[in-house]
Amino acid sequence: MAMGYFNPYFIKRRAKKWWPYFGLFLLLVIGYQEGVLRSYSSSGSYTTVDESSRSTMKEIFALEREIKLLKSVLKKYSIPEAEYADTLLPIIYVITPTYSRPHQKAELTRLKSVFLHVPSLHWILVEDATHKSKLVMNFLESSGLSYTHLHQSTPPDWKLQDSDPKWRKPRGVLQRNAGIKWLRRKLRGERDLRGVVYFADDDNTYSTELFKEMRDTKTVSVWPVGLVGGVMVERPLVSRAPTPHVTGWLAGWKPDRTFATDMAGFAVNLALLLRRSDAEFSFTSSIGHMECDFLEKLVTLSQLEPKADLCTKVLVWHTRTERPNMKDEERLRKAGTPSDQGIEV
Amino acid sequence: MAMGYFNPYFIKRRAKKWWPYFGLFLLLVIGYQEGVLRSYSSSGSYTTVDESSRSTMKEIFALEREIKLLKSVLKKYSIPEAEYADTLLPIIYVITPTYSRPHQKAELTRLKSVFLHVPSLHWILVEDATHKSKLVMNFLESSGLSYTHLHQSTPPDWKLQDSDPKWRKPRGVLQRNAGIKWLRRKLRGERDLRGVVYFADDDNTYSTELFKEMRDTKTVSVWPVGLVGGVMVERPLVSRAPTPHVTGWLAGWKPDRTFATDMAGFAVNLALLLRRSDAEFSFTSSIGHMECDFLEKLVTLSQLEPKADLCTKVLVWHTRTERPNMKDEERLRKAGTPSDQGIEV
Repeated sequence: MAMGYFNPYFIKRRAKKWWPYFGLFLLLVIGYQEGVLRSYSSSGSYTTVDESSRSTMKEIFALEREIKLLKSVLKKYSIPEAEYADTLLPIIYVITPTYSRPHQKAELTRLKSVFLHVPSLHWILVEDATHKSKLVMNFLESSGLSYTHLHQSTPPDWKLQDSDPKWRKPRGVLQRNAGIKWLRRKLRGERDLRGVVYFADDDNTYSTELFKEMRDTKTVSVWPVGLVGGVMVERPLVSRAPTPHVTGWLAGWKPDRTFATDMAGFAVNLALLLRRSDAEFSFTSSIGHMECDFLEKLVTLSQLEPKADLCTKVLVWHTRTERPNMKDEERLRKAGTPSDQGIEV
Repeated sequence: MAMGYFNPYFIKRRAKKWWPYFGLFLLLVIGYQEGVLRSYSSSGSYTTVDESSRSTMKEIFALEREIKLLKSVLKKYSIPEAEYADTLLPIIYVITPTYSRPHQKAELTRLKSVFLHVPSLHWILVEDATHKSKLVMNFLESSGLSYTHLHQSTPPDWKLQDSDPKWRKPRGVLQRNAGIKWLRRKLRGERDLRGVVYFADDDNTYSTELFKEMRDTKTVSVWPVGLVGGVMVERPLVSRAPTPHVTGWLAGWKPDRTFATDMAGFAVNLALLLRRSDAEFSFTSSIGHMECDFLEKLVTLSQLEPKADLCTKVLVWHTRTERPNMKDEERLRKAGTPSDQGIEV
């Protein structure tokens, strides 16, 4: 057999034997390419989509590589794994009323950037509208966040008119209550009610640290709020002895309210909120007393938990965004050529 | 040979001969499936696809969160950053002019939340001031970002007065140029100049996706900007043939400028910017022509790279924050008891 290679018959048989291999190899190449081609033909409409999905893959691989690297360094320095393993955190339920306006998506995008840093956060976004909008729906779907999308329209009598000053009528009342109702319904009968509820309007500025502070709220936790009520900062006054507790409020306007805090200045323990079935916001609260009336149903002053280094740090700001100038847009609309034709802003 | 089939030795050889066929068949199946799977993950228009892109986003954000956690543990144990620094992506240098005002820290906090999602980003923050402020210094130090802190004050003649409309005088000129100068000095003689330069004002709204788009800028990349120039969106007009290129601008105001884009609407390749030593911003640009005059030193219209799905997506918004109402604060100040005594807002 060793001489077989020089036998012409053997050569012929070798050749015959390799043909099917080659055929299968061809099929393999074709099959693979068909798959690849299909992946091109079914993707969106531009070359850029493919590029973007390719770069997404690249990004995922880069991130995974980085995690591997970081873990190897942690191992090298013998740091205990418990330090960086995922743990079960109480869920932070963030209830946000929102409404349609030119800068709505911008505002929601800013919130998204913060919330994505916060583990175990569930966003309940409630539109003041008769139906859910496409814009908000698409935004939430691609956000990467855990969320619930609701809508609840404010009756016309209670809507703020453009000419009204902003404090004229309480805003977001029904939307916040819709969020609370969803929680009551969703979590009825649940045993594990570890969690926190926070009411976050869509125009404020939130730091990621704020959410660490509120995570383990047992009753109602409170902290300073910047740029609110006509002053640089409104804040709880804290006495350190015998144990840290809130004694009153430093506010520019009506500091004698039982809870002189803005909506952005407190978070409520989930179980407590669900237990007090009458705790919700009311249209009939007198001006500037909405937060106060709500909190009175939940706690007394001495039960408040002062956070943010005993209320010495500002971690949230009551910012407001200017209504954008749409002067030229009106002209374009009249001419039938709005600038945002076919593009979502 | 006809009897060969009954010869056990022959059977053994037949069996041996068919193994490679089976192996190739397996490869074929795997190859085909890989292609099919890829076609699912990269396709763009159906529900399955949306779900897949949504879960991709979730995956990315989960990975990013994990990286953050791992890094925080590494920091906690004071492990040198050189051990785990990533070096593969082109660096995005973000140059931001900023100035002191009640909502400055809030604005910077919002930027921080976005920038922390972006790998390989270096923030050059330039204060319009005669010295670096404590507030900005502390903010940057605890930000977790890679940064350079500069200051460069605007001469009084060029400062915008409270009574001036915002477009009256070009803003941030010297601060942006200070950032560019820092880059020229810092990177002189460097061989690896892969990178991008972006001018990000401190009041705009940026999505994380924007930074993915600009990362591989080869000359100057451009995209739409929302809520600017009196319209919903200003955007480059793109022609798809023969290859995608910018043909002009859709803008409410002076769309016939060579580059009718806002500062937030473009990014420049680092090597290109450093090569053109005269490329900087100028006080003498006529109103609304600052971006245009700058870009004319770098590229022609046909060299622009249209990003954000060929300029069909809005990933940045030219938002403005209202000056907060400080009515009660003035009263408190006069009484010697400002609300922010001992607390940074």
